[in-house]
Amino acid sequence: MLESTIAAIAPLHEAAMSDARELHGRLTKPAGSLGALEELSVRLAGLAGSCPPPLPGAPAVAVFAGDHGVHAQGVSPWPQEVTAQMIGNFLAGGAVVNAFARQAGAAVTVVDVGVATPIPGSPADPQDAPAGGAAERLDLAVPRLVSASVRQGTRDFTVTAALTRDEARAAVEAGIRVAEELIGAGAGILLTGDMGIGNTTPAAALIAVFTGADAADATGRGTGVDDPTYRRKVEVVRSALERHRPDPADPLGVLAAVGGLEHAALTGLILGAAARRVPVLLDGVIAGSAALAAAAFAPDAVGAMVAGHRSAEPGATLALRRLGLEPLIDLGLRLGEGTGALLALPVVTGAIRVLHEVATFDSAGVAEK
Amino acid sequence: MLESTIAAIAPLHEAAMSDARELHGRLTKPAGSLGALEELSVRLAGLAGSCPPPLPGAPAVAVFAGDHGVHAQGVSPWPQEVTAQMIGNFLAGGAVVNAFARQAGAAVTVVDVGVATPIPGSPADPQDAPAGGAAERLDLAVPRLVSASVRQGTRDFTVTAALTRDEARAAVEAGIRVAEELIGAGAGILLTGDMGIGNTTPAAALIAVFTGADAADATGRGTGVDDPTYRRKVEVVRSALERHRPDPADPLGVLAAVGGLEHAALTGLILGAAARRVPVLLDGVIAGSAALAAAAFAPDAVGAMVAGHRSAEPGATLALRRLGLEPLIDLGLRLGEGTGALLALPVVTGAIRVLHEVATFDSAGVAEK
Repeated sequence: MLESTIAAIAPLHEAAMSDARELHGRLTKPAGSLGALEELSVRLAGLAGSCPPPLPGAPAVAVFAGDHGVHAQGVSPWPQEVTAQMIGNFLAGGAVVNAFARQAGAAVTVVDVGVATPIPGSPADPQDAPAGGAAERLDLAVPRLVSASVRQGTRDFTVTAALTRDEARAAVEAGIRVAEELIGAGAGILLTGDMGIGNTTPAAALIAVFTGADAADATGRGTGVDDPTYRRKVEVVRSALERHRPDPADPLGVLAAVGGLEHAALTGLILGAAARRVPVLLDGVIAGSAALAAAAFAPDAVGAMVAGHRSAEPGATLALRRLGLEPLIDLGLRLGEGTGALLALPVVTGAIRVLHEVATFDSAGVAEK
Repeated sequence: MLESTIAAIAPLHEAAMSDARELHGRLTKPAGSLGALEELSVRLAGLAGSCPPPLPGAPAVAVFAGDHGVHAQGVSPWPQEVTAQMIGNFLAGGAVVNAFARQAGAAVTVVDVGVATPIPGSPADPQDAPAGGAAERLDLAVPRLVSASVRQGTRDFTVTAALTRDEARAAVEAGIRVAEELIGAGAGILLTGDMGIGNTTPAAALIAVFTGADAADATGRGTGVDDPTYRRKVEVVRSALERHRPDPADPLGVLAAVGGLEHAALTGLILGAAARRVPVLLDGVIAGSAALAAAAFAPDAVGAMVAGHRSAEPGATLALRRLGLEPLIDLGLRLGEGTGALLALPVVTGAIRVLHEVATFDSAGVAEK
């Protein structure tokens, strides 16, 4: 399934991009006056293979959640149980991702790919939960929980590989399945979200591997750790890279060695969207690390990626630079959950809407310069 | 009316701001993780004098249009008639401002404060047009034209003052009236828009006067002028400043000497919003120049201002820096019309929505660090 998804990912459609550039020159505005929105709309025309590309109806944010063995190394001041507690908050509609999703008209799907502790308000045994099968439709009012747990948290990658290759593959394929389900239910754009106490540590390790950056440059303060915790976090990343020496040309091996289950699943979501030529709006540093893995599996997957925002985490900027993506929003957010992607969604929709709705000089009877 | 409006403008409410900061610390997210959105929501609580501040319902963009005598100096490659033609396009719903307003659910009001040529599809004599009286309600589907023309374009300020003091005051007061009408009709946030071929030239002159910047630093390429036109534009601004030597402590005198009718009216809109403690979301460089004039009239007016975006025009950055405002969007837009403000509107709404809708650690049963 991973291999067939990768095989389906193809370059942007040049003719549709040319059509979009030519149309921009005829619309009633000075040439180039919409700045980065013009090139964004051109890329999305290339992804869709048509000009104008479709307005991204039924946006869907997928929040992948997992826990991290490396939490035992003291890389976060938050207890591990907060991952499950926040999922309870998402399902009750009380988190920032819910507020922003309601505003943006986006459906929220929470995917447990590896939470270590019971999710409040959820059946004790995940086998009793509704199967994470095809969503009949995207329900805007009620966040949905999909149980796709690969294992209850990763192993501590300062001691051993975080995941086996089979586990990493299972998580990637869970993400591909979620992409296919959401697109099958009508989603015209996917947004990445994440939840996992400690998950900026594997993100930093992944970014260091795929960009070649030093551990100190790729590592940030996550939810806001103090100086001793930050120094410990950098050392944890550095020692993991030295222990495993992951090969960036083997993305599954990298995800297994120093990744997280939500990072691997997000890699799959991105690959699944790219294979179906549906845009995927990236949130912050966790998404950035997954996007690097997706690009390592399939370089043309970058064509489906839109960088929602620039996270305050330094690794996010390293990842976007390597991917050649400029973020749409840059407001110092570092929350995750998909919040930065949701804030950027109206910019993406607006960029496409211009190609659908704006009059040409000719049709509007406006003189040109 | 100008004097009573200025007298009504007061500082932000400190207690409401403290309440908002305290509430942010209890919401289910790491402290500070929403970056610039947190401080924005705090300021808007201070403006409203309550925490949470109201969600900004019924957003209204007011597009002030005027022509410019200085157009005769060859500062723009576009014919002057395009101002009126674009108003026709706005009223027909075909411009980018219309597309973005439809997406954002914002009403569009076009205000003719000084267009030089007949507006297509509009009665030949403005006296025959519906009076620009109080809007009964804000109609989202149909852009509205308000006729409030002070004179059919400014005078060429390389030769004489652009406006008399009485004309400048009339334009400012037209803007105040529009603010009061829109707020009276239910608008919870005002967005600035502008249309006027050549209007980045008076904007550059105003910004140079109020910030003390050199003409060359305050002047940009507007719709994208070539090198000879750009050099001419800088010289036009420089010679106007030397001829009139406007006193930045006398904003009405500055607007009269080197301003534009839409710049003066936008100054009034901002003052009117600030007096009613309604936020005003600034678009680009024309709004920035008007915001400087508004701050010169009433320094506390800055409390009502939110910088929607950073225009590609260099003067916009000078203006925002002087006002102490950080823009929400920075995508190289240089279109005007209100387009940058409309793109930023969901960010403003989102910042406030967090204070309304997000659960606290206590209520959600989420552990703290």
